[in-house]
Amino acid sequence: MFSVQDFKSVADKYKVIFFDAFGVIKSYNGLIPGMDKTFAYLEEQGKEYYIVTNDASRSPQQLAQTYHKIGLDVIQQERIISSGMLAKEYLDLKVNDGIVAYLGTESSAHYIDSSGLHTLPVSAITQYNIDQVNALVLLDDEGFNWFDDLNRTVNILRKRTIPAIVANTDHIYPISGSNDVSIAIGGVATMIESIVGKKFIRFGKPDSQMFMFAYDLLRERSSAPISKKDILMVGDTLHTDILGGNKFGLDTVLVLSGNTLPDDAETRIRATGIVPTYVCESAGV
Amino acid sequence: MFSVQDFKSVADKYKVIFFDAFGVIKSYNGLIPGMDKTFAYLEEQGKEYYIVTNDASRSPQQLAQTYHKIGLDVIQQERIISSGMLAKEYLDLKVNDGIVAYLGTESSAHYIDSSGLHTLPVSAITQYNIDQVNALVLLDDEGFNWFDDLNRTVNILRKRTIPAIVANTDHIYPISGSNDVSIAIGGVATMIESIVGKKFIRFGKPDSQMFMFAYDLLRERSSAPISKKDILMVGDTLHTDILGGNKFGLDTVLVLSGNTLPDDAETRIRATGIVPTYVCESAGV
Amino acid sequence: MFSVQDFKSVADKYKVIFFDAFGVIKSYNGLIPGMDKTFAYLEEQGKEYYIVTNDASRSPQQLAQTYHKIGLDVIQQERIISSGMLAKEYLDLKVNDGIVAYLGTESSAHYIDSSGLHTLPVSAITQYNIDQVNALVLLDDEGFNWFDDLNRTVNILRKRTIPAIVANTDHIYPISGSNDVSIAIGGVATMIESIVGKKFIRFGKPDSQMFMFAYDLLRERSSAPISKKDILMVGDTLHTDILGGNKFGLDTVLVLSGNTLPDDAETRIRATGIVPTYVCESAGV
Amino acid sequence: MFSVQDFKSVADKYKVIFFDAFGVIKSYNGLIPGMDKTFAYLEEQGKEYYIVTNDASRSPQQLAQTYHKIGLDVIQQERIISSGMLAKEYLDLKVNDGIVAYLGTESSAHYIDSSGLHTLPVSAITQYNIDQVNALVLLDDEGFNWFDDLNRTVNILRKRTIPAIVANTDHIYPISGSNDVSIAIGGVATMIESIVGKKFIRFGKPDSQMFMFAYDLLRERSSAPISKKDILMVGDTLHTDILGGNKFGLDTVLVLSGNTLPDDAETRIRATGIVPTYVCESAGV
Repeated sequence: MFSVQDFKSVADKYKVIFFDAFGVIKSYNGLIPGMDKTFAYLEEQGKEYYIVTNDASRSPQQLAQTYHKIGLDVIQQERIISSGMLAKEYLDLKVNDGIVAYLGTESSAHYIDSSGLHTLPVSAITQYNIDQVNALVLLDDEGFNWFDDLNRTVNILRKRTIPAIVANTDHIYPISGSNDVSIAIGGVATMIESIVGKKFIRFGKPDSQMFMFAYDLLRERSSAPISKKDILMVGDTLHTDILGGNKFGLDTVLVLSGNTLPDDAETRIRATGIVPTYVCESAGV
Repeated sequence: MFSVQDFKSVADKYKVIFFDAFGVIKSYNGLIPGMDKTFAYLEEQGKEYYIVTNDASRSPQQLAQTYHKIGLDVIQQERIISSGMLAKEYLDLKVNDGIVAYLGTESSAHYIDSSGLHTLPVSAITQYNIDQVNALVLLDDEGFNWFDDLNRTVNILRKRTIPAIVANTDHIYPISGSNDVSIAIGGVATMIESIVGKKFIRFGKPDSQMFMFAYDLLRERSSAPISKKDILMVGDTLHTDILGGNKFGLDTVLVLSGNTLPDDAETRIRATGIVPTYVCESAGV
Repeated sequence: MFSVQDFKSVADKYKVIFFDAFGVIKSYNGLIPGMDKTFAYLEEQGKEYYIVTNDASRSPQQLAQTYHKIGLDVIQQERIISSGMLAKEYLDLKVNDGIVAYLGTESSAHYIDSSGLHTLPVSAITQYNIDQVNALVLLDDEGFNWFDDLNRTVNILRKRTIPAIVANTDHIYPISGSNDVSIAIGGVATMIESIVGKKFIRFGKPDSQMFMFAYDLLRERSSAPISKKDILMVGDTLHTDILGGNKFGLDTVLVLSGNTLPDDAETRIRATGIVPTYVCESAGV
Repeated sequence: MFSVQDFKSVADKYKVIFFDAFGVIKSYNGLIPGMDKTFAYLEEQGKEYYIVTNDASRSPQQLAQTYHKIGLDVIQQERIISSGMLAKEYLDLKVNDGIVAYLGTESSAHYIDSSGLHTLPVSAITQYNIDQVNALVLLDDEGFNWFDDLNRTVNILRKRTIPAIVANTDHIYPISGSNDVSIAIGGVATMIESIVGKKFIRFGKPDSQMFMFAYDLLRERSSAPISKKDILMVGDTLHTDILGGNKFGLDTVLVLSGNTLPDDAETRIRATGIVPTYVCESAGV
């Protein structure tokens, strides 16, 4: 049903390309083959590009370094839009004082920390400071004791009427060197939300706020007017990249180099009703 | 816990006000008392205001007329952002040819029609034209036979791998002159979505795309730079107006003139964890 | 992975067989080929059998007649366990007086009526008799005006704190002579339940109460002791027949003559984790 | 709306009483006041009674000892029906060989172990024995490392098409000496189920299998015939005890000595539509 097309000829039709990161640009084996040439081609053609990624474990600066390590020096931090940036913007705009309790590594908290709020791991919340907790942020699945701190999180949210922010909506992520996966903080968040019966605030694809953030930056920095018709979203996951891109009004490419396997693509498109504009084997050229 | 504040003194702190429509500006008894003075005051103070409403049953022009009829001539169609406008933008950007099948009144379809697509009610889809159906839009709960056309909708979506767009996320709406409610098209959409097992595209608060649409218009039309800090969202419903406003980074007012009753407000804020910046009895001054 | 086995050799290992009806014994084309011989064989071997079916549209007596019409005279009403029987038992045990409002045909109501309660269609509930409504039963998707009566149902359940009983948990059912389906009352029930936010009482597979009802009858009528190990459940649907049979502790056969197509069986077993003890092409011999 | 009644006069109308355990018979402060007299009264009147409890952390024998320790010697293990017993029956009937992997304490596994299967904690499952794992049971929230073993559980269930059994459906449980709660294994199970996308088999109230197990035992042991009309279910939780009792066809008492506080009872009954036959302050007399 869906003919597989050549990425370069698809990309040629657009002025701006948004890329998902994992499964599109890189995998646990490093760079997806041909992606260095893809970015060289985009630079040569004067096309804009952004990385739009569900990731709140590191700052954009640190994320940029992970690309430099695998040889993609071209990707600067200004080109990276992460769900962590949205969580940070939320805190900057909406939480003015007090403690922000978090689940995640110290490094993930360091990034949101800079807004002047006092961030503390959930493990450091006690009866003496709980009344000063004005927000709780779920950043990363590592850096804390699950049994102790997930139970603590439930009890903090039962006692305090405060926003709970989920900085990455993914439920699982792949693990290096195997077919195994790890439970992501977005999966943990769903459990906690259902247990406390409150409504959490989630940042990350497919939510349109991610795309809007990138679109806003793009328009700010661009001299020429840019419309949604000029932008192509490239991703490997139907439920985040393609659904979100479609809903925002962008044309979308499903690449088969990550989460969606070539043999399953058509079945999954039919089953979910999430239809990419194009299907390409990979974004590498 | 939440002290009830005077709306005028809250509004004074902001340059721009976003209003929900039903339960905030008007009810089935007409204008909410004092709202005429509120808009006169905003005009006098040179503040911007927008109506941000989950409504796809009519065009912004028709919606504006409903305000004129109850004496609010000040509300022009340029100030109205409806979920129907997002559905229309989606079709304009993403569906280029073929038939758009719809559930709703002819008048609701007329509005999305203008983009040049061929709109047809679900009842007019047969074995002869089903292959040309490239999108299905759920606009309004009236204008069709529920038994026949909801069953038809299920079967169209089983046969065609096409986007299904929900142009109003509300599940119920109040009915004139009683405490009764009616099932809204958003409630119907959830049933159809669960039966066909596909992912629908939903437009309407609390989704941030509604707020972004208003924010974009505002920035286009405004000479001075506007930040999210300058905008106040006013609504009567925690799960749509307040959650959506908060998530977009706006300060929010819960008014007690509509869906949320004065006696329940605190209980519901605590139960849902959706916390408005302020609570006011009404937006009327 | 799952080898397809011969039904007769599987059945030979058990004393009692429970059959699902649609997709196992009959389809819209009449009897599933070989099912007459299957029942003749069971009779000959002195094995017990029961039909365990999600159906509240008719009485067991009327259901039995549908088998006689297609030539299966052997199936007597005593051998039929329907979800409607459980709804009727519930009303007999738990609702002592007043009105039972219902959605469905008059014929479906006639069956539950016999318990002495006053049954009335939802369309006959007004402000004058609503206070006497002590239960609401969802029986069938036909026999009422969907728009009017589903809205009435929502409002009755908002006003009255009464049990809502769903007498058939299926969400869709196949329609004669095509690949089309119809929305079943169980699908409608899920929408109403989510809109009113109350907990409905559902009868039907996979719930174990269906199997328990059959098991109880079996033990009452049988002279020899019967254990769950002696019973085989035969069905065409993983989520109802197989999940329910497994959970109740029975061995199960998935037949490929109905809902689950031969090409999909393995994929669906893997995807759902619902594993039948055996897979057979059909229960016909 | 619901008048609070005297427990003794309610109990007098029934031959058999089913009790929930926690919040009804005992709390973290020990025996609920008056419960010793309640059981003395039931003994004196020759009434039957059973404890029907969502608990898979210990054997019925160990559970009985917890009552003896607080002075209720009258409660023998034969009177205890736990969700763990259903999980054990399932394994006895449906899993014939291989490894049963479990999440929980060694003591919880010891109980299901006796059926002759080889039980191993999830932490002991490796690439060398994973192919022999034929079932996975979630027993208790303690006894394992949450981060390591919940991730292991997800990966086992991705690789093996086997039943996953949840032996306790509760999502939280209260913690000694505070208003804090702990996440129960049923809450953890919901997260894992949603992440792997498979259907788990759950044992525990409100599922009718719990009540059926008790009802079956009762009929086996009783000389006189017993009908559902003769049985009263006593519980402190609407969603498990009362919903399950009602659905099974039993009359029900909501007691206000545990999960449901006197001030909330009426609001919660109205909000959920789960209506007990009676409301009593406590089952203590």
